[in-house]
Amino acid sequence: MSSSLLPPVKGVRLASVPARIKDWQRDDLLLIEIPKEASVSATFTQNSFCAAPVAVAKEHISKGNVRALLINAGNANAATGSRGLSDAQACCEAVARAINIRAEQVLPFSTGVIGEHLPLQRLLDAIPRAAEQLSDSGWDGAAKAIMTTDTHPKTASRTLEIGGEEITVVGIAKGSGMIQPNMATMLAYVATDAHVAQPLLDKMVKEAVNASFNRVSVDGDTSTNDACVLIATGATGSQVENSEDRAYSALMGAITQLHIELAKAVVKDGEGATKFVTVQVEGAGSSAEALRVAFEVGESPLVKTALYASDPNWGRLVMAIGNAIPGSLDTTKVNIYLDQVQVVEAGGRSVNYLEEQGEQVFSKPEFTIRIELGRGNCSEHVWTCDFSHEYVTINAEYRT
Amino acid sequence: MSSSLLPPVKGVRLASVPARIKDWQRDDLLLIEIPKEASVSATFTQNSFCAAPVAVAKEHISKGNVRALLINAGNANAATGSRGLSDAQACCEAVARAINIRAEQVLPFSTGVIGEHLPLQRLLDAIPRAAEQLSDSGWDGAAKAIMTTDTHPKTASRTLEIGGEEITVVGIAKGSGMIQPNMATMLAYVATDAHVAQPLLDKMVKEAVNASFNRVSVDGDTSTNDACVLIATGATGSQVENSEDRAYSALMGAITQLHIELAKAVVKDGEGATKFVTVQVEGAGSSAEALRVAFEVGESPLVKTALYASDPNWGRLVMAIGNAIPGSLDTTKVNIYLDQVQVVEAGGRSVNYLEEQGEQVFSKPEFTIRIELGRGNCSEHVWTCDFSHEYVTINAEYRT
Repeated sequence: MSSSLLPPVKGVRLASVPARIKDWQRDDLLLIEIPKEASVSATFTQNSFCAAPVAVAKEHISKGNVRALLINAGNANAATGSRGLSDAQACCEAVARAINIRAEQVLPFSTGVIGEHLPLQRLLDAIPRAAEQLSDSGWDGAAKAIMTTDTHPKTASRTLEIGGEEITVVGIAKGSGMIQPNMATMLAYVATDAHVAQPLLDKMVKEAVNASFNRVSVDGDTSTNDACVLIATGATGSQVENSEDRAYSALMGAITQLHIELAKAVVKDGEGATKFVTVQVEGAGSSAEALRVAFEVGESPLVKTALYASDPNWGRLVMAIGNAIPGSLDTTKVNIYLDQVQVVEAGGRSVNYLEEQGEQVFSKPEFTIRIELGRGNCSEHVWTCDFSHEYVTINAEYRT
Repeated sequence: MSSSLLPPVKGVRLASVPARIKDWQRDDLLLIEIPKEASVSATFTQNSFCAAPVAVAKEHISKGNVRALLINAGNANAATGSRGLSDAQACCEAVARAINIRAEQVLPFSTGVIGEHLPLQRLLDAIPRAAEQLSDSGWDGAAKAIMTTDTHPKTASRTLEIGGEEITVVGIAKGSGMIQPNMATMLAYVATDAHVAQPLLDKMVKEAVNASFNRVSVDGDTSTNDACVLIATGATGSQVENSEDRAYSALMGAITQLHIELAKAVVKDGEGATKFVTVQVEGAGSSAEALRVAFEVGESPLVKTALYASDPNWGRLVMAIGNAIPGSLDTTKVNIYLDQVQVVEAGGRSVNYLEEQGEQVFSKPEFTIRIELGRGNCSEHVWTCDFSHEYVTINAEYRT
């Protein structure tokens, strides 16, 4: 979250308009135009019930030469059958007419309620208005237009120099519930004005997403619509041609950090979240094992309600660890730390641990649960949040 | 839940006493004595952080000739290291002295807070008092003594005739949170006065648990302590020697139904639960696939908050189904019914479905979500409950 205005990314023009996709007045439709020399890469939800726009976007991106993205909030156009597909297609055609490109050069995205048809005519009416308002200063409005239950827009930016030229990276994201790994997470759009060869950009988006959005959890559910898109407009002279370049490292570093910043912002804005917690697992036998333990702890409703209550109920932590590695864990090698406070030593309560110390850590808005498994040398972490009354309220009342 | 008194099971004597394991006055210690001709089988939690009493009980049951069970509520004696083991052992020794058996003939069980040591002296003081009060009419008190966050005792009983003789089966259970499959569920004690050969009883407990407690979910978490014990005292003349016997089918049927009754009672008493929901999955490619889908739906926090809100948000159902079978599901073959109301047809909203119909079903205290996958011939079901404000309150305040 940044309060200053986001800088333009050379070559990217954006416009947000109100299309009344729900019964509200706010901007809910975002159009992004990119130049024909741009490269675009994306990762999409792995949910089998992927939404109509996801199916269309996947097909369109596979043809290359993407020139525009259209994102609406308020309706996911998911589980909407063949009409959903033709609605998404119709939106792409309207964008194509409005900015004089082909429909297959448009990637459509939707977020919101599942199972209801798009108010298509409203979208078709709004698209030409958006096309008229395209501007390179539209990032801040864009971050707001894609919000659903988010309480604030999520943005991040970086500048760096490549070959003496200033390069900008800007990203926006939405998402506060349904946050889960495997990229089935939320919507994120990141753009840079460097030129990056397509295969390299494909690699960059995978790695950046793996280090960021695939490490967060709000409620363990996975959406039908989510996607992360990385755009390199090539509008500056900077070229990033192969992964041995120093320029590549610099740009990859900036893009990864920016993804992490956005992913953390999503967790912090988790539905009803009052705490931001890093679950760090060390000494695992494999990365997969470390991640499994971290997610089991980070997603356990019993752990998450204890986080909410500021109750350092470490019994629930060992319960979750024991679930992640059934049967074969030598529990006498397990240590757990709440920030610097050791609470579990050799599988039992640490001799010097005082409940007040744990309460002090659990009362902080941000802290780290560090788990040593004593099985190997692999580490992983996930970012999670607590489970509050507000989560139940938000999700019990979302549609009504 | 039965309001009438539970009948005795010939050969079983029970006593519940207050041991002040927590700062309360209620009975919290249960002693069960069984005759030397009894067979005993059990399934235990698969959590690696299994509690000290679980480790001791597993070892003792492997030696056969079990003569007594000791169960305390209020403290789980889990994650308590070597002192936890010696505490559990000391309890077994106290029981052995009190009723003149060997310590290794005693199975100890504990339920309650994890990570705190047992108030051992209070247990040792209470055990002889319990031994003096053993009686065959102690089942109802027993069901109360093992409760933790349960709002009422869970009991069930059956009588049947085998070879002209009346056989009784009685069961008690506790558990309302941390309910999850793989037997890492709760505590249940079921006894019959038939004689059942040990290998047959082992098979019976596995099958009965698989059909009951392994099909329920409250919050997807798995406890460190949970166990299900099946006792056949052999105190009647009835013999069940092999699984071809008609007597076996009759007894197995009664025991399975009784387990299911207890398992459903546990879900209905799920922490904060206001609804009891059966998730029935049909047309799966395998039983494992059917169960995966059923649990993904039954455990999704987004589905469970929708259940709580009586909001037939079927988009969350398809989302959960799509997560359970990533990538390979042909969504156009998926149908979903809420009781008799078809809400999803061929992967999209059913043409004739009216929101009011769904709301009517979701407003009922009990209903079935039936999912047809169209991939094969396998079916499975799980029983679940909703996720309410009360769940958060209970689990945020459990220790304080």
